[in-house]
Amino acid sequence: MQPNEHHDTTVRVRYAETDQMGVVYHANYFVWFEVGRVELMRALGIEYKRMEIEDDCHIVVVDVRCRYHVSARYDEVLRVRTRIAESRNLAAGETLHVICGSNGKPKLLPEKYRLILGTSPVSSPLGSNP
Amino acid sequence: MQPNEHHDTTVRVRYAETDQMGVVYHANYFVWFEVGRVELMRALGIEYKRMEIEDDCHIVVVDVRCRYHVSARYDEVLRVRTRIAESRNLAAGETLHVICGSNGKPKLLPEKYRLILGTSPVSSPLGSNP
Amino acid sequence: MQPNEHHDTTVRVRYAETDQMGVVYHANYFVWFEVGRVELMRALGIEYKRMEIEDDCHIVVVDVRCRYHVSARYDEVLRVRTRIAESRNLAAGETLHVICGSNGKPKLLPEKYRLILGTSPVSSPLGSNP
Amino acid sequence: MQPNEHHDTTVRVRYAETDQMGVVYHANYFVWFEVGRVELMRALGIEYKRMEIEDDCHIVVVDVRCRYHVSARYDEVLRVRTRIAESRNLAAGETLHVICGSNGKPKLLPEKYRLILGTSPVSSPLGSNP
Repeated sequence: MQPNEHHDTTVRVRYAETDQMGVVYHANYFVWFEVGRVELMRALGIEYKRMEIEDDCHIVVVDVRCRYHVSARYDEVLRVRTRIAESRNLAAGETLHVICGSNGKPKLLPEKYRLILGTSPVSSPLGSNP
Repeated sequence: MQPNEHHDTTVRVRYAETDQMGVVYHANYFVWFEVGRVELMRALGIEYKRMEIEDDCHIVVVDVRCRYHVSARYDEVLRVRTRIAESRNLAAGETLHVICGSNGKPKLLPEKYRLILGTSPVSSPLGSNP
Repeated sequence: MQPNEHHDTTVRVRYAETDQMGVVYHANYFVWFEVGRVELMRALGIEYKRMEIEDDCHIVVVDVRCRYHVSARYDEVLRVRTRIAESRNLAAGETLHVICGSNGKPKLLPEKYRLILGTSPVSSPLGSNP
Repeated sequence: MQPNEHHDTTVRVRYAETDQMGVVYHANYFVWFEVGRVELMRALGIEYKRMEIEDDCHIVVVDVRCRYHVSARYDEVLRVRTRIAESRNLAAGETLHVICGSNGKPKLLPEKYRLILGTSPVSSPLGSNP
């Protein structure tokens, strides 16, 4: 997989994720976006779990947006399509992140990750589209 | 309380709402926004639960956004400030909604609610700011 | 798959499922047990979603228990092992259910499901073991 | 408040806590039990947040059980009644805990807490009843 290409992963809607309208509760989409980000990173050879532990790099969410076109329903298998975008042209369904150390202070993403993710040292947004 | 004024409610951060970064998992803010909307409506004399049952009016979320300035932490008491905005000037931290019947089709918000909420028959957005 | 055999499914721990102790928040195990039940039923040829819609049979949880031996952690792939047990010998990690109609009243599980699940008409417990 | 007395706190059911059966998803009761434990401790003068930070004492859940008699529904205000029980006579709706350091190893609950909670140094179960 090349940077700027998308990565697809699937999730099946759990009963716990529905609400009494009979559809998925809207906040849960962000949980799936997170699954999408982590799987995109894994496909690029980055294990986020180790990035936290070994490099003390935490991907902190600073801005999220989601527009809902149709309602996801129980037991449906959804494709979560994720791509990395430059912060300037982030579009619908996006999330924006900064890298922080465990002290909560922003820090530069180590070069080994920047090379893989194809991002500039200044910004490292990850965009998620359902 | 007058339409266009804000309404404040408080929530205390639960352990379940934290994640292993030691802060609140970002999707949970939308749960609090929902609490804010429901309490704003209650302050205006509208019980959302009855609106669903008696009027078959369901507030469906169609667009949400949240920018995170500081991280909420476990056991903090947060003030959730909610105000109703016209769809045109919705700003940071907003959610957008349509009214649907239980058939999932959009419908007009009954006049009794429009009068209270001070919204036009065309749009009935509810905005939440933490 | 035969009744009384177990069925295995896997889940990967999501970031949203962790808490600030750095492990999975304990209530989330029950969400996985539910995933296990649904996948066991699917393996037996029963789609629970259709059971709700077509037969108005809802599996209502009436008793749950879980003992935690080791803490599940972020990004781990867990095997959720589920088996159907008679209500008398339910052991550690179990959940107990009744079948209800959408009116909330208990009802007999239709024979077509009883034959597959190998349960008596009186009780239809589903047991989940992580 | 004396040890062995109960402590009551209230929670209002959130939309996010319902599922498509129109009732509260069963795992969420354990989140409320946790709220009950924390508020019981606060009533006894113990701030759990500080116990984690200042004393490196983490209350780890090792066993939970819940029997559901009636279904909680959206917007209902529930009373969460919590009492501390000895581990021997824990009854319906209980949770069992051990105290661990941040290294995940069990440790003795510091005496200052044992005196307040009225528990023996060997066991420190907290029981929650909805």
